[in-house]
Amino acid sequence: MDKALKTEPVDVPIRVRYADTDKMGIVYYGTYPIYFEIGRSEYMREKGFSYRNFEEEGYHLVVVNLEAKYYNSATYDDLLIVRTSISDLKSRGLTFHYEVYKDGTLVVEGKTKHICINRERKSSSMPPHLLKILKDVESA
Amino acid sequence: MDKALKTEPVDVPIRVRYADTDKMGIVYYGTYPIYFEIGRSEYMREKGFSYRNFEEEGYHLVVVNLEAKYYNSATYDDLLIVRTSISDLKSRGLTFHYEVYKDGTLVVEGKTKHICINRERKSSSMPPHLLKILKDVESA
Amino acid sequence: MDKALKTEPVDVPIRVRYADTDKMGIVYYGTYPIYFEIGRSEYMREKGFSYRNFEEEGYHLVVVNLEAKYYNSATYDDLLIVRTSISDLKSRGLTFHYEVYKDGTLVVEGKTKHICINRERKSSSMPPHLLKILKDVESA
Amino acid sequence: MDKALKTEPVDVPIRVRYADTDKMGIVYYGTYPIYFEIGRSEYMREKGFSYRNFEEEGYHLVVVNLEAKYYNSATYDDLLIVRTSISDLKSRGLTFHYEVYKDGTLVVEGKTKHICINRERKSSSMPPHLLKILKDVESA
Repeated sequence: MDKALKTEPVDVPIRVRYADTDKMGIVYYGTYPIYFEIGRSEYMREKGFSYRNFEEEGYHLVVVNLEAKYYNSATYDDLLIVRTSISDLKSRGLTFHYEVYKDGTLVVEGKTKHICINRERKSSSMPPHLLKILKDVESA
Repeated sequence: MDKALKTEPVDVPIRVRYADTDKMGIVYYGTYPIYFEIGRSEYMREKGFSYRNFEEEGYHLVVVNLEAKYYNSATYDDLLIVRTSISDLKSRGLTFHYEVYKDGTLVVEGKTKHICINRERKSSSMPPHLLKILKDVESA
Repeated sequence: MDKALKTEPVDVPIRVRYADTDKMGIVYYGTYPIYFEIGRSEYMREKGFSYRNFEEEGYHLVVVNLEAKYYNSATYDDLLIVRTSISDLKSRGLTFHYEVYKDGTLVVEGKTKHICINRERKSSSMPPHLLKILKDVESA
Repeated sequence: MDKALKTEPVDVPIRVRYADTDKMGIVYYGTYPIYFEIGRSEYMREKGFSYRNFEEEGYHLVVVNLEAKYYNSATYDDLLIVRTSISDLKSRGLTFHYEVYKDGTLVVEGKTKHICINRERKSSSMPPHLLKILKDVESA
């Protein structure tokens, strides 16, 4: 996975819920996209930008692409770390990159590509104040 | 569980998804409320009333009470039957009753109590055409 | 809901995930049983007893009854508190009681009744060391 | 996405559940991997091979890679079609390819790469009877 451009990451702890597991006894593969979402939500909060407010202003970051590579498994009660950064930034969209760790070992790596849409559900530039925050993050 | 008043039930088959299971190897207890929702959704469709249209008209049936009794377990790939009926009907709300079967054996029994709210998210009578359908069902 | 017997509760914060919401814009009613599970898992951890270890010893606390009352709604990004206590304790099972709060307001109240099963998936007394912890909690 | 090699696909209908949606009013992006799982499960059943039996023989098809491209959105009550085929087949693993349609329009396209593991959770050749079925499918 291309990791050429990466902003300073934000780490978020996630305790695996019983509901997150499946009959193999491990975290269901479809649970990781939920963990990614928590990662990017907390990334934005940490950078001084609430995704909730962003939506309240009428914008959404719609997912257009998802990738995940599974290297190891995790199970109930594990305390995972989701490490999130931005690997690509344009005025109309961005790509988040995720690494999920368990005790320092990489469990899953992923990325999600998003485009910004506005109240009319049309493609849109991101609002200037968000873009500024993200650009500052990128060049930091 | 009180089953005094029951309308003619509607049966819906549900194939257990891998995602529905947990590390005990069985269907997670929190999956059954989702099965109940499928049961009442298909119940209404069968009675000639689409919950989707109901919401498009500005109404919602908000859940105010949930009960479930677990008698047996189900697992991945089981073909379950959710049997849904109405056990109480008032102008401003109703109660659905559910029985989930596996090969004729009762797995889980439950009920959900709902109140009708309108576009202003205030308690409301159900729209007359729905109430008529439900009353016909009840007296049938 | 009967709250006659209650042990000292344990509070756990839960940040509402985007995945936890539904098209009404609020937390899906079937998400709360998952929150309850987190509540009892952290309750046990706090009291010096890991549910993970309990399962590794061959035991399970199977849910036989679930009840939930919905008073208010929560939405994406809300920071909820799940307050968990034990409302009934027997050698072969127990009942957890939950209150989910948002900014001090009760959102959902619930309880789950569990029986203890052993490696043979038969009803069993809880292991003495767990029962002792729980009894101490109860009489504290 | 590479679609050079594709077996004859199997179509499976999926009715969108209320629980599958999020506060944007559409199917949550993390729900599609669950739909993919239903697609491959029914694909195998259709080809005369039950994934359940496969697991009962001690094997698992572990996901090592997931990709999804989101072109359109779906919402509550939509009747989707998941079209599944095999796009790569080796003795120790395979890749499934998925297309999710709504009224003939492509909503999401995806693939999942799997490796076969045995009872010892080690990489393994797939059992001969499965491999034969899949090879027949491939050359048909």
